[in-house]
Amino acid sequence: MAELRRDPLSGSWVLIAPERAARPGAAITPAPAADSRAACPFCPGHERETPPPVLVYGDWTLRVVPNKFPALDADSSGGAAGVHEVVIETPEHAPPPELDPETFERLLRAWRDRIRVHASDPRLAAALPFKNHGPLAGASLAHPHAQLVILPLVPDALQRELENSARHYQHGGRCLCCEILERELAEGRRIVAANDQVVTFCPFASRVPYEIHVLPKHHHSHLESLDDAMLAPLAQALHDALAKLQRRFPGQPYNLVVHTGPLRRAPLPSFHLHLELLPKMSHQGGFEWGSGHQINSVAPEDAAALLRE
Amino acid sequence: MAELRRDPLSGSWVLIAPERAARPGAAITPAPAADSRAACPFCPGHERETPPPVLVYGDWTLRVVPNKFPALDADSSGGAAGVHEVVIETPEHAPPPELDPETFERLLRAWRDRIRVHASDPRLAAALPFKNHGPLAGASLAHPHAQLVILPLVPDALQRELENSARHYQHGGRCLCCEILERELAEGRRIVAANDQVVTFCPFASRVPYEIHVLPKHHHSHLESLDDAMLAPLAQALHDALAKLQRRFPGQPYNLVVHTGPLRRAPLPSFHLHLELLPKMSHQGGFEWGSGHQINSVAPEDAAALLRE
Repeated sequence: MAELRRDPLSGSWVLIAPERAARPGAAITPAPAADSRAACPFCPGHERETPPPVLVYGDWTLRVVPNKFPALDADSSGGAAGVHEVVIETPEHAPPPELDPETFERLLRAWRDRIRVHASDPRLAAALPFKNHGPLAGASLAHPHAQLVILPLVPDALQRELENSARHYQHGGRCLCCEILERELAEGRRIVAANDQVVTFCPFASRVPYEIHVLPKHHHSHLESLDDAMLAPLAQALHDALAKLQRRFPGQPYNLVVHTGPLRRAPLPSFHLHLELLPKMSHQGGFEWGSGHQINSVAPEDAAALLRE
Repeated sequence: MAELRRDPLSGSWVLIAPERAARPGAAITPAPAADSRAACPFCPGHERETPPPVLVYGDWTLRVVPNKFPALDADSSGGAAGVHEVVIETPEHAPPPELDPETFERLLRAWRDRIRVHASDPRLAAALPFKNHGPLAGASLAHPHAQLVILPLVPDALQRELENSARHYQHGGRCLCCEILERELAEGRRIVAANDQVVTFCPFASRVPYEIHVLPKHHHSHLESLDDAMLAPLAQALHDALAKLQRRFPGQPYNLVVHTGPLRRAPLPSFHLHLELLPKMSHQGGFEWGSGHQINSVAPEDAAALLRE
């Protein structure tokens, strides 16, 4: 039976409709990206095909370059000022899709370090670190890479989370996500994995099948304020979640988004840094465009149980 | 140069970034739906494969059936009550993708007539008529069909439009969309086509390349209040817009959504009935999920000029 669920953080409701999963043509088939190593601008030996790097780790285990086709540009005159950088996560062209924990640790560090560099620019308002895996999820190149966009204003999705979090904090004096974590751990049904430092779970109002949120247990509001010791457990949890997803759905495309507080407003006691992992299992249709809501054909309790197996 | 544009109706901003169009892998290739006439449940002779029809025009030129895999169900006990019907637009399995004006006129009439039937149900709040064309746009079957969802609450996207429209009306005493139409017609750059009754244009803050809005010139707030005389010109404008799109991009998948006022609140002087046509040319990625905003790589002025050619 269809059920309307409201997400306390975004304030938006989702329609959980397991009946929809049975319809013909409901599942989409992941297709590999049009892929040629010889033409890959992110592979070793092709460094001159990208703009010069703004950050390199080691003897290039990771490179950050300005996006050659930017959605936003810091040198914008008249247009919208912003940052659009590409994080080439590894020199390897085709590692296993869940990567390894060390690669994710370097990615988190690179996002953090680049946000620190840009945070003082008064034209910039909010950082949006994200990664698209697979062409169906919007990745135009197969070589593992992530992106960092920094916007001249706080985007709607973050603004809504900030407002709902602040309202909750004013009423009860506690962080909404800290409370959600406690409740999820106590109930257990939507937990994918948990250790001393990080919890991964399918949120109550999951927008897509197998949506997974990754939250540090200890309260942090900003990625740029995380110290090194926090990066490894977050990366390990992210890797483990992706490994569970890929084991069940080999080659599964996904989007990964970091929700971090607005620049120069750290620390925020009401806002909780978190990562959102959104597997791409269906296409947005007219319902989603017209309503602003998602229909999810897999209950998050079932999704979590399946991922835990 | 990237430009931030705010849509006055939704209140949301869009990033217009023509530089993005040049990146490798930016365009998606429409794929035909897995398609077998023999197995098509919407073809003549297969009527028993759908639930019994709730509406049939003529000797079946159009059939409306309850969705076999509903997102919402009127007989819901405990769950979310609602309506989910499928409009089989024609007995023809594979007509030209822009269909013909008469087929669209029947579709508009069917949506209108079915909303009229359900409008008095006090559990229902808002109708969402939409159509997905092509598997990339979320259509799971190739045979031309559209859908009607009626929700137990007013969805976010409509609520925002209602609020922005009402605010504008309170200040100036005029409908926001009536003013937008006047301005677009005077400026001309974003007009796709216009006649005495209907205007089609690429909106200033288009969310996707070649987005087209179809607006009746005369103010109406509700699809269920349209009289027969208004259906033909609307259908003709919709057909013409789709024919222009398909001529330029053969087989182009798209979503079509009708924005109509909430049930039992007609007429609304502040809200303007309109159709939104959204070609599916790229995949939602982490940016869109994380920000709640769209990046559009084709300026609407260029899109309209190209469609007018």
